[in-house]
Amino acid sequence: MAETIHPFDEAIRLEPLADGAFAGRSSPAYWNMVGPYGGITAAQMLHAMLSRPERLGDPVSLTVNFAGPVAEGPLRIRTQLMRSNRSTQHWTATLLQEGGEQEGNPESVAAIAMAVFGTRRPVWSHTEARPPTIAPFETLPRLSRPEAPAFTRRYDLRFERSPFESLSTDSRSACWVADHPPRPLDFPALASACDVFFPRIFLRRGKLVPIGTVSLNIYFHADGAALADQGASPMLGAALCHVYQSGYFDQHGELWGRGDRLLATTHQIVWYRE
Amino acid sequence: MAETIHPFDEAIRLEPLADGAFAGRSSPAYWNMVGPYGGITAAQMLHAMLSRPERLGDPVSLTVNFAGPVAEGPLRIRTQLMRSNRSTQHWTATLLQEGGEQEGNPESVAAIAMAVFGTRRPVWSHTEARPPTIAPFETLPRLSRPEAPAFTRRYDLRFERSPFESLSTDSRSACWVADHPPRPLDFPALASACDVFFPRIFLRRGKLVPIGTVSLNIYFHADGAALADQGASPMLGAALCHVYQSGYFDQHGELWGRGDRLLATTHQIVWYRE
Repeated sequence: MAETIHPFDEAIRLEPLADGAFAGRSSPAYWNMVGPYGGITAAQMLHAMLSRPERLGDPVSLTVNFAGPVAEGPLRIRTQLMRSNRSTQHWTATLLQEGGEQEGNPESVAAIAMAVFGTRRPVWSHTEARPPTIAPFETLPRLSRPEAPAFTRRYDLRFERSPFESLSTDSRSACWVADHPPRPLDFPALASACDVFFPRIFLRRGKLVPIGTVSLNIYFHADGAALADQGASPMLGAALCHVYQSGYFDQHGELWGRGDRLLATTHQIVWYRE
Repeated sequence: MAETIHPFDEAIRLEPLADGAFAGRSSPAYWNMVGPYGGITAAQMLHAMLSRPERLGDPVSLTVNFAGPVAEGPLRIRTQLMRSNRSTQHWTATLLQEGGEQEGNPESVAAIAMAVFGTRRPVWSHTEARPPTIAPFETLPRLSRPEAPAFTRRYDLRFERSPFESLSTDSRSACWVADHPPRPLDFPALASACDVFFPRIFLRRGKLVPIGTVSLNIYFHADGAALADQGASPMLGAALCHVYQSGYFDQHGELWGRGDRLLATTHQIVWYRE
């Protein structure tokens, strides 16, 4: 009997090449409107850096800038250790695909990333933010929109009210977030989930408008022990927007785990057209 | 009579070299505890990318990862256009200094940056966040701490209460921020000011502890017209922390301009020791 591979592991699977590069594929299972879901691209790039044998420590921050469209098919991720210190490492990653729009170049840059890895220490810790309030996971229905992009079916998202309901006062919202089918949380999956919040402009305008994430920023607050404790339990997500300005809006998100543990905070700046 | 150069312009001054590189110096005028103020390093790197003749559009996002110490003296910033699209450009910058800690390499990487530049369009815009309330700039005294690092004297910072007062409930605070002496706002100065918020852990713990910004993220919401309208007027700043966890805390900041215009939102993840 063939072993069943979780769609997430299939999506981020990489084959090591020479010189710190990796071969992968864009994932139809995590497809969004016109390309792969940004979260899965972020997860692939983080996975590439995590796979380098020289890597020390856990992810502290990850920034992914989405430079161009990613087509269905093979891709290559180049990774580079930029600096190694006693307790931190600085890495970069570049996602390349053949073809694309860049003239005279057989490969085009589709995304660039920077990450910091560090060792965590048992020092004074404190959480100032508070998790949002929402009805228990078990009491809410799983979001089901057959017409929504494929990646939404790779998640179990649960809302108290329709995520596309127009909000008159602000775009703050809360939801449950879990991989579907359930999968024990790791850093790539946490990175991917950071992009799961629906674009705030959809909520604010009560309609779909053309959008595209330009830059995604993730701060990891969980270590390996926190991930192990979380396991496959659903996370609690919260998101809001500060400003929609002249074609770009920002989005702030939080992912909370068991025991009111803040696992990650995330920000993105998103291009939009009205 | 010699023309007077503003210390900020002196600090970010660059001399173009070949192949998209620039020569500069770390700035004693903007010195922090053990190296230059992170904001001035961010401004230098943004200034380098802005200085490339191929650059199109205004800054939309800037992420600077501080990879190692910057010593007093000369430095070099390499810039690279990674991808150019119809309305956005993706750039990277690397700050190098001779010496440093990397064995076998005459130059070490002190900071790496990614930036997105884009053209803004007159579309539906809306600000959801609200500026903090604070007494008028003119009615508050300028922060004066002769023992504080040099960079604090390059700013006119005004608080309603001591910025180092221990806060029992949260580390949320507001202050006025202006260059000192006054200088018309531009993108490098806005980037620099995004790092001006005192580390939230100082407020929370009511004492100074060893800290260092690991990664600084800035989203620009102002275009050239908004900067021109702001001129040298003081900005209103607000900052808060979500979590201090195992040696790293995050910090969110906002810089507001005239007419309740949100000019920039910013985030950083900061290493700390207790």
